[in-house]
Amino acid sequence: MYVQNYPSKLLENAVEEFAKLPGIGRKTALRLVLHLLRQNTDDVDRFSQTITQLRHEVKHCKMCNNISDTDVCSICSNPRRDYSTLCVVENIKDVMSIENTHQYNGLYFVLGGVISPMDGIGPADLKIDQLMNKITEGNVKEIIMALSATMEGDTTNFFIYKKLKQYSVTISAIARGVAFGDELEFTDEITLGRAIINRVKFEATLAD
Amino acid sequence: MYVQNYPSKLLENAVEEFAKLPGIGRKTALRLVLHLLRQNTDDVDRFSQTITQLRHEVKHCKMCNNISDTDVCSICSNPRRDYSTLCVVENIKDVMSIENTHQYNGLYFVLGGVISPMDGIGPADLKIDQLMNKITEGNVKEIIMALSATMEGDTTNFFIYKKLKQYSVTISAIARGVAFGDELEFTDEITLGRAIINRVKFEATLAD
Repeated sequence: MYVQNYPSKLLENAVEEFAKLPGIGRKTALRLVLHLLRQNTDDVDRFSQTITQLRHEVKHCKMCNNISDTDVCSICSNPRRDYSTLCVVENIKDVMSIENTHQYNGLYFVLGGVISPMDGIGPADLKIDQLMNKITEGNVKEIIMALSATMEGDTTNFFIYKKLKQYSVTISAIARGVAFGDELEFTDEITLGRAIINRVKFEATLAD
Repeated sequence: MYVQNYPSKLLENAVEEFAKLPGIGRKTALRLVLHLLRQNTDDVDRFSQTITQLRHEVKHCKMCNNISDTDVCSICSNPRRDYSTLCVVENIKDVMSIENTHQYNGLYFVLGGVISPMDGIGPADLKIDQLMNKITEGNVKEIIMALSATMEGDTTNFFIYKKLKQYSVTISAIARGVAFGDELEFTDEITLGRAIINRVKFEATLAD
């Protein structure tokens, strides 16, 4: 069925909005919208309000760029975390993935992506300067690079390694238990947890 | 990744709301919510407002129960439609499917489902009384039963046929070009269009 003749402009507008979401076609969008139409008004209002509220009120932690309800996120403000270890990840989904392994007790730094010339993403588009500032403060003893095991992740690892090697910090990378080409968020917790434990100094991975 | 440690309550709320939608798991919900977070505030506001507005303002046509922006839908209020023919369908998606075939110029009647004892849906849960009232008004000469070719659809056809045969209306059913067990909304336009054209008197389908 090619959806074309909407009986209602309101319906069409709602379907078009849903169809803008990634991986949602018009047919799925129509199914979702019709589902919402069958719900109580209060439930639909809560659905909309929750999303609006998230977009307007959510903050990014000023320490690590993670999503947070407060200026400093619950990880960065937790006194039981190890402040001397910093795990560099691409995005907040990767923070959640690593937190789920329960194998890591340090802090995070969300880079905002990886260097990818194909997508027009250069070092200046990432939070590398902010990372440098954090390192120069001197509290961090070890940096764990936990970027995706892709060409772009490797390039970013190497770029940051070159910038950081002048400082007295240990630079490690999560072990390659993660299969080449895989993205972090799709890795199972056991593999990802082991990769955190078996992290190796960054030079060693280059020499292999 | 089993999503558990949300860095933000606002994020968690939004993910939970999306995960209530049919066919959307927590992982997909997170992906959709993070997509919305990357959009402009205005775009997200429009997304939410469109859905709220739909739920609050959409009407059901008082003639045919189709979704409509007005009290009487654009089909029922169109003077060029054939008011003597009434096509009985389960839901508004089926109206859209048949409209897309461009093979039908009569009116519709949205039943709101089919009789399904397994799902606890009896005749009283459908708009059968409203359909009867419409028939007794006397304008309708032919009723086309266009329910899904399932056991439940057949049961509903038969139930309505028994109620209607006392009136002087022709009762037909769409031709069985639609494979048994298939649902209307997944049928291609050609097959569905032909099934409308080749409709047969309801007795004939029972005799076969």
